[in-house]
Amino acid sequence: MTAAPSARTEVKRVPERGVYDRVTIDAILDEGYLCHVGIVQDGSPVVIPMLYARDGDSILIHGSPASRMLRTAKFEGLEICLTVTLIDGFVIARSAFHHSMNYRSVVVFGQAIPITDEADRQAALDKLVDTLVPGQVPYVRETTEKEAKGTLVLRLPLDEASAKVRIGPPKDEPEDYDLPIWAGVIPIKETYGSPIADPDLTHDLTVPDHLANFARTSR
Amino acid sequence: MTAAPSARTEVKRVPERGVYDRVTIDAILDEGYLCHVGIVQDGSPVVIPMLYARDGDSILIHGSPASRMLRTAKFEGLEICLTVTLIDGFVIARSAFHHSMNYRSVVVFGQAIPITDEADRQAALDKLVDTLVPGQVPYVRETTEKEAKGTLVLRLPLDEASAKVRIGPPKDEPEDYDLPIWAGVIPIKETYGSPIADPDLTHDLTVPDHLANFARTSR
Repeated sequence: MTAAPSARTEVKRVPERGVYDRVTIDAILDEGYLCHVGIVQDGSPVVIPMLYARDGDSILIHGSPASRMLRTAKFEGLEICLTVTLIDGFVIARSAFHHSMNYRSVVVFGQAIPITDEADRQAALDKLVDTLVPGQVPYVRETTEKEAKGTLVLRLPLDEASAKVRIGPPKDEPEDYDLPIWAGVIPIKETYGSPIADPDLTHDLTVPDHLANFARTSR
Repeated sequence: MTAAPSARTEVKRVPERGVYDRVTIDAILDEGYLCHVGIVQDGSPVVIPMLYARDGDSILIHGSPASRMLRTAKFEGLEICLTVTLIDGFVIARSAFHHSMNYRSVVVFGQAIPITDEADRQAALDKLVDTLVPGQVPYVRETTEKEAKGTLVLRLPLDEASAKVRIGPPKDEPEDYDLPIWAGVIPIKETYGSPIADPDLTHDLTVPDHLANFARTSR
């Protein structure tokens, strides 16, 4: 088992659920797309939902330079904690106490650094869109210079990352297994519905293959 | 429209998406069950996924007194930011720049206070279980005194809460609507699968009605 890369990264609560290998971490990050980013603002915690994409050994996040969170990072790095949580099921135990969730989560600590080079930022934006909705980058209208300038893209290295995973049936007290109480797992899955066309579509367009295929996937 | 209850609660980025009325906030909180809780630890942000339940004018969260986050709150309140995000769809625009998500989120700032009274804590634990999996409290084995003592339950008032909501089709640049590019929304839904029995079930038990009904719902 890989060791935790830093003290704060080490999973302390139920340590057997902690995993630090990049294969597990990357698999969770690549399945998700929504993260919750925590920053400290005026000494207080602020947590904001954001989209992200993994790009090799780092995570890309983006937003408007006017955003409360990203504004702080405009010229220097911003210390953040980025958390991704995939929920797999409700764990139904024989006692209220042992109810739980099956989940896979990743927590990344680090300094998010703004990408200042224009070409790098454009490439990062493409990577974000292409990861979130595969096939869209070559399909849509190209990003203008003004749009690229109007977007702040930050890169967070994956140096300080850990994952936490719970799978399987409930773990009840030994003496409770004989009770006539049903126990098990109710699986949770994210599914995509049929694409809904913009009512303002001006052409007689059908859903392109890459979007139709994407909509048939689920995570 | 209700005004923001505090300066930091005010939605600054795309302010037309900000809503502060309790009906909207409560509806989002009651549909979700997973929150991301941010605290400041040694000056750095830490974001941890947790289950929660709304209890009237406050939110209940719980965990082991040994947990990194909750330990800090053991005797006094803990300043947290609690964020709930429900994802409704990928917004597919005609340009990469206008891609977005449909979502409903709530951000609550405040002091999470441990519930010290035994009876109150037991009631709060029951409220949590009953909210997360309706019907389970009278069905499962009763919580022992030792178990109740071994759980830390915190109450966060809803005084400083705001919601942010995006719904509907993409908003593209006026000149892009005539491009032969499909645009619209790919809906996202959370669905529950058929209950999977614990392989260690000792009786010939079928899934009780309240769990079968719960598994048929989706959020």
